[in-house]
Amino acid sequence: MQAVLNTDIYALTDEGLSAGRSTIAVAEAMLMAGIKVLQYREKDKKAGAMLAECIELRRMTRDAGCTFIVNDHVDIAMLVDADGVHVGQEDLPVEDVRRLVGPDKIIGLSTHSPEQCRDAIVRGADYIGVGPIFATRTKKDVCAPVGYEYLEYVVKNHDIPHVAIGGIKLHNVADVVRHGARCCALVSEIVGADDIGAMVHRLRRTMAETR
Amino acid sequence: MQAVLNTDIYALTDEGLSAGRSTIAVAEAMLMAGIKVLQYREKDKKAGAMLAECIELRRMTRDAGCTFIVNDHVDIAMLVDADGVHVGQEDLPVEDVRRLVGPDKIIGLSTHSPEQCRDAIVRGADYIGVGPIFATRTKKDVCAPVGYEYLEYVVKNHDIPHVAIGGIKLHNVADVVRHGARCCALVSEIVGADDIGAMVHRLRRTMAETR
Repeated sequence: MQAVLNTDIYALTDEGLSAGRSTIAVAEAMLMAGIKVLQYREKDKKAGAMLAECIELRRMTRDAGCTFIVNDHVDIAMLVDADGVHVGQEDLPVEDVRRLVGPDKIIGLSTHSPEQCRDAIVRGADYIGVGPIFATRTKKDVCAPVGYEYLEYVVKNHDIPHVAIGGIKLHNVADVVRHGARCCALVSEIVGADDIGAMVHRLRRTMAETR
Repeated sequence: MQAVLNTDIYALTDEGLSAGRSTIAVAEAMLMAGIKVLQYREKDKKAGAMLAECIELRRMTRDAGCTFIVNDHVDIAMLVDADGVHVGQEDLPVEDVRRLVGPDKIIGLSTHSPEQCRDAIVRGADYIGVGPIFATRTKKDVCAPVGYEYLEYVVKNHDIPHVAIGGIKLHNVADVVRHGARCCALVSEIVGADDIGAMVHRLRRTMAETR
């Protein structure tokens, strides 16, 4: 399970930020660029439409050797045999998600403090989201930025795989890596890019040069 | 499974319409009044909070011999061992819900036309919602009222258990029964009543006297 975030970029979908393109089209460009972890996160769609998209994305990600994670909707993740589920602090508890998906699936949990990090480990999360690093408008009900302090706490104290998230862009990703982030999640910077492939390559190069 | 709607009133929760009372308190009053089918439908709560309430409601409904249905959230229904799930036309398809919950659980599907009724039967729904009979403000994304025409079609042509829904109140419930409804769903008229027990008894007496 540790291998799940053994990659530089964790990509998420968000059709509302995709400059008029469909999430399927954006995902296709991401996979062409070599994205190896993709989370399906669409807040304003009905479950039937989400299931249809996830069936397609499951096929595409499997063909591309990309780990496929579904946000929140455990039932949809189960139906499409996704590799995992990502939940927030107010979503279904990790232990309950585990009861549904079984021991072999990946469960990610968003965390915002050292207490939540330790709690995630105890509850059996396979990886944690660490953030928001910066202020972000991608999520509506997000908590205040935790900055680098919490990221550095995680890097220094825990082995659980982490993904830094929240307001990460091309212009600050090197700084996030310098503060210890092994994997960075980006939403708008990738899905909103004119040339998604070029953006992924620039991000990847920037991250590699910083290490 | 046919027995599921072998009752007069199908009650739904909606904390926003409950005059400041919690859904748990309202459900307690409903069960005291002898409600035998209760659907948990809360649109604006996070999944963690919904799960906590459904755990409590599952215990209460089991003690009361009341069928417990969860709206939309198949994962929550599975976690609390609800008796069934209710989905709409744009939610997860009935066949997919069936794959998750198995053959012994109840699946209800909202329908708004003869085509959707026949489709629900083919897909294996255990009962159908029939409506909206009248205009309603309980649901935001609801379709235009279908009036009595569709209800009469269902009653005349199909044996599948049905529940009439949408804008049904004490003042019009007799008329809905006269048009053939065996079971009526009510939301605001019950959860918003000053005296929930008295309202349930008045509804029940009105329906019985009409038959």
